[in-house]
Amino acid sequence: MPELTDPVAVTQALIRHASVSPDPGPAQHTLAAMLEALGFTVVSLPYGEGAERTPNLFARLGTAGPHICFAGHTDVVPPGAESAWAHPPYAAEVSDGILFGRGACDMKGGIAAFVSAVARCVEQGGVPGSISLLITGDEEGPATYGTCKVLEWMAEKDQIPDYCVVGEPTNPAAMGDMIKIGRRGSLNAHIVVEGVQGHVAYPHRADNPVHKLLSVLTALRETPLDNGSEWFEPSSLQITSMDVGNTATNLIPATAEARLNIRFNDLHTGAGLKGWLETICRQHAPTARVSVRISGESFLTAPGPATDHLVQAVQTVTGRTPKLDTGGGTSDARFIANYCPVAEFGLVGASIHKVDEHTTLADLETLTVIYKTFLEGVMA
Amino acid sequence: MPELTDPVAVTQALIRHASVSPDPGPAQHTLAAMLEALGFTVVSLPYGEGAERTPNLFARLGTAGPHICFAGHTDVVPPGAESAWAHPPYAAEVSDGILFGRGACDMKGGIAAFVSAVARCVEQGGVPGSISLLITGDEEGPATYGTCKVLEWMAEKDQIPDYCVVGEPTNPAAMGDMIKIGRRGSLNAHIVVEGVQGHVAYPHRADNPVHKLLSVLTALRETPLDNGSEWFEPSSLQITSMDVGNTATNLIPATAEARLNIRFNDLHTGAGLKGWLETICRQHAPTARVSVRISGESFLTAPGPATDHLVQAVQTVTGRTPKLDTGGGTSDARFIANYCPVAEFGLVGASIHKVDEHTTLADLETLTVIYKTFLEGVMA
Ligand SMILES: [Zn+2]
Ligand SMILES: [Zn+2]
Repeated sequence: MPELTDPVAVTQALIRHASVSPDPGPAQHTLAAMLEALGFTVVSLPYGEGAERTPNLFARLGTAGPHICFAGHTDVVPPGAESAWAHPPYAAEVSDGILFGRGACDMKGGIAAFVSAVARCVEQGGVPGSISLLITGDEEGPATYGTCKVLEWMAEKDQIPDYCVVGEPTNPAAMGDMIKIGRRGSLNAHIVVEGVQGHVAYPHRADNPVHKLLSVLTALRETPLDNGSEWFEPSSLQITSMDVGNTATNLIPATAEARLNIRFNDLHTGAGLKGWLETICRQHAPTARVSVRISGESFLTAPGPATDHLVQAVQTVTGRTPKLDTGGGTSDARFIANYCPVAEFGLVGASIHKVDEHTTLADLETLTVIYKTFLEGVMA
Repeated sequence: MPELTDPVAVTQALIRHASVSPDPGPAQHTLAAMLEALGFTVVSLPYGEGAERTPNLFARLGTAGPHICFAGHTDVVPPGAESAWAHPPYAAEVSDGILFGRGACDMKGGIAAFVSAVARCVEQGGVPGSISLLITGDEEGPATYGTCKVLEWMAEKDQIPDYCVVGEPTNPAAMGDMIKIGRRGSLNAHIVVEGVQGHVAYPHRADNPVHKLLSVLTALRETPLDNGSEWFEPSSLQITSMDVGNTATNLIPATAEARLNIRFNDLHTGAGLKGWLETICRQHAPTARVSVRISGESFLTAPGPATDHLVQAVQTVTGRTPKLDTGGGTSDARFIANYCPVAEFGLVGASIHKVDEHTTLADLETLTVIYKTFLEGVMA
C-alpha cells in the first residue's frame, strides 16, 4: 500500500489498474483497502448483472455532524490506440514533474487527493464531523448502476450527507479557476420528416422532406431559448447532424432527418423543451416524428455556507478566486443534487479523455491541501 | 424486314435488340436498313472509343426544301430485374392491344411511327421537301458522343434542317396532351461548409457548420427565383440532400454539406445562378465551397409556322389541342435548339423507365398519322 498522505503514490496505485467503464473491480478494491486502513467502514455496493455489473462503494469515517461526502468514480474512458501514447496509459509514469496515465485527472488524481487530505487529517487527530466517500465504477458509461443506485441505498440507510464535493476536474486551465455549483440539463432529439419521393423536374408531384426539415430547424434556431439566468449562461441548441443520404441529383428524397442537443438552464425543464420541439415540428412539418431523450435536468446548489468554505479553501491555497460556474457537460452531480447540496472541484481538465492524459505533481499537492483546508473549515 | 408502313411491326423489330445505353449497334443497323429500303441515304457516325463508343446515324431522303428532321435515340435504360416484368423486356409481346417492351414508348415506338409515316408518304409518291433522321445511340447515358456530335457534323456538311421534331414521349396521359417547345435548364450544386469540431457543451469553442449551412439553405429557399415567364413555369430549387453523418450526440461536427438542383427558365442562365449561389454562400458561410455543374441551359422555340403545323396535325388526328409546354426533364432537344427550331412530340410517357414499359397499338397508329399529317402540312 502506498503512503496514503502522498497523493502521487495513491494516484499511481489507482492508475495501474486498467479500469475502463464499468470498472472491473480491482481499482475499487485497492481504494477500499486504503480507506479501511484510514479507519473508514466500507460497504461494497455492486449493482447490475453480467457486462453491466458495476462495483460501487460507500465508505464512512465517524458518525458526527457535519457529514461531508466526497463523490467520484474509479472507471476511466478507453485509452484508444496505446501506441499513440508517449507514456503508456496504465504505467503512471512521472516525467519532469508530470504524472501521465488514463484517469490521472479524470479522476483517480482527484480521489487520491481526497484520500491524502483525509490521511493528513487523521494523522493530525481527525476531524470533528464525519467524512464519507461515494465511489462508483461507472460514471463514464451509462451510469445506470452507479451513483444513482448508491444514493438510493444511502437514503434508505439514512446516510445522506450535509454537503457533497464531486472531485471532477473542473479547472479549465489552472488550479483555482472554477468550482461547478450546478450543471445545465441536456436533451437529445431526433427529428425524422417523411415526404414523398419524386423527380426534381416535377416538384409538385413530390413533397420534399428536406425543405420541411429546413423550416423546422430554422424555426428552432430563430427562437432564442432564453438570455441566461442568475447562475446560468443562455441555453444552447446545437444541431449535430442532418442526414438524407441521397446521391441521385435528380431525385427528391423520401426522408430527411436531423439530430440536435439542447443544453438548458434552470429556466427550462426537459419536458417543457420536448413540448416546444413538438409544437415547432407540428407547425412546420406536421408529419415529422420527434423522439427526445432527456439525459439530465439542470440543477443548481446556490452558494451557501459550505460552498463558501470551499471557495475560501481554494482562495487560501491558490490565492485565486474560483468562478462559480454551471457550464460544460453533465456529471454524476446531477444525481446527488436530488439529495443534498453539491459542488464540484478537482484537478485541471485540459487533457481528459485524450492521449497522454496527465496532471502535474504540484496540482495533486495543491488539490490535497485544498480538500484538507475545506474539511477543516467546514467542520470548524 | 417488317412491313414498314406498320408501326407495330417496326417497333417490335427495334425492341427485340437489347440496346441499353450506349446502343451496342444492331438496333441501329436494323433501322438503317429500313431507311435505306425507303430510299434514304444513311451515314453512320460513330463517336467515342471503347465502352463509350456510340453509334449514331444521319439519314436523308431528298434534297429539296423544306428540310424537316426527326431526332431520336435507339438506346434504352436498363430493364432492372427481368423477373419483375410480366412481359419480358425484349420480347415485344402484344397482349390485348398493348405492346410491351423496354423502349416501347421511350422511344423506339416514336422512331417506328416516324418511319411508318415516311413509308406511307413514299407509298403515296413522296413529299415535296426533304426528310432526315438524326438518331443517336446514347441519349439516356452521358450523351457526350451522341446528338451534339452529329449536329457538329451536320453543320459542317450543311445538313442543318429547317425544323426538327424530337420523338420523345411528351404526352403525360393521352395522345394530344402536350408538345414540348422548350425545356428548363438544369444546374446541380454541391455546398460544403467546414466548421470547427467541438463538444456540444462548449459551442463557443467550436464553429457549428450545420448552422451555417442551414442559414445558406434557408436564404436560398427564401429568395424566389422568379414568377415564371411567358412560356415557362417559375424556376424551382430543390435541396436533394443534406449530409453530416455525425452519430455522436455530444459532438459538433467539423463539416456539413448539401446538394441541390435548380430547374430554371429563360429568365436565368446557368452562370448567373452560379454567381447567385456563390454570393449567398459568401454572405452566410464565408468558408463554404460551392461546386456547380450546369447540365443544360434553358431553351425555347417560340411558336411559329412549323410548330403551328404540328399543333394542327395533333388537333386533326386526336381532336384535342396540345398544351405547349416547357416543363419536365431535359432531352437532346437542348442540343438541337442551338442549331434550328425544335419541338418534341411522341407517345404517352407514363410507363417510361419502369417495368412493363408499354404503348397501345392505337397510340402507335395515332402517332404515325400525326407525323404523316404534319409532314404533309408543313411541306404543302
Ligand atoms: Zn470524470
Ligand atoms: Zn427518351
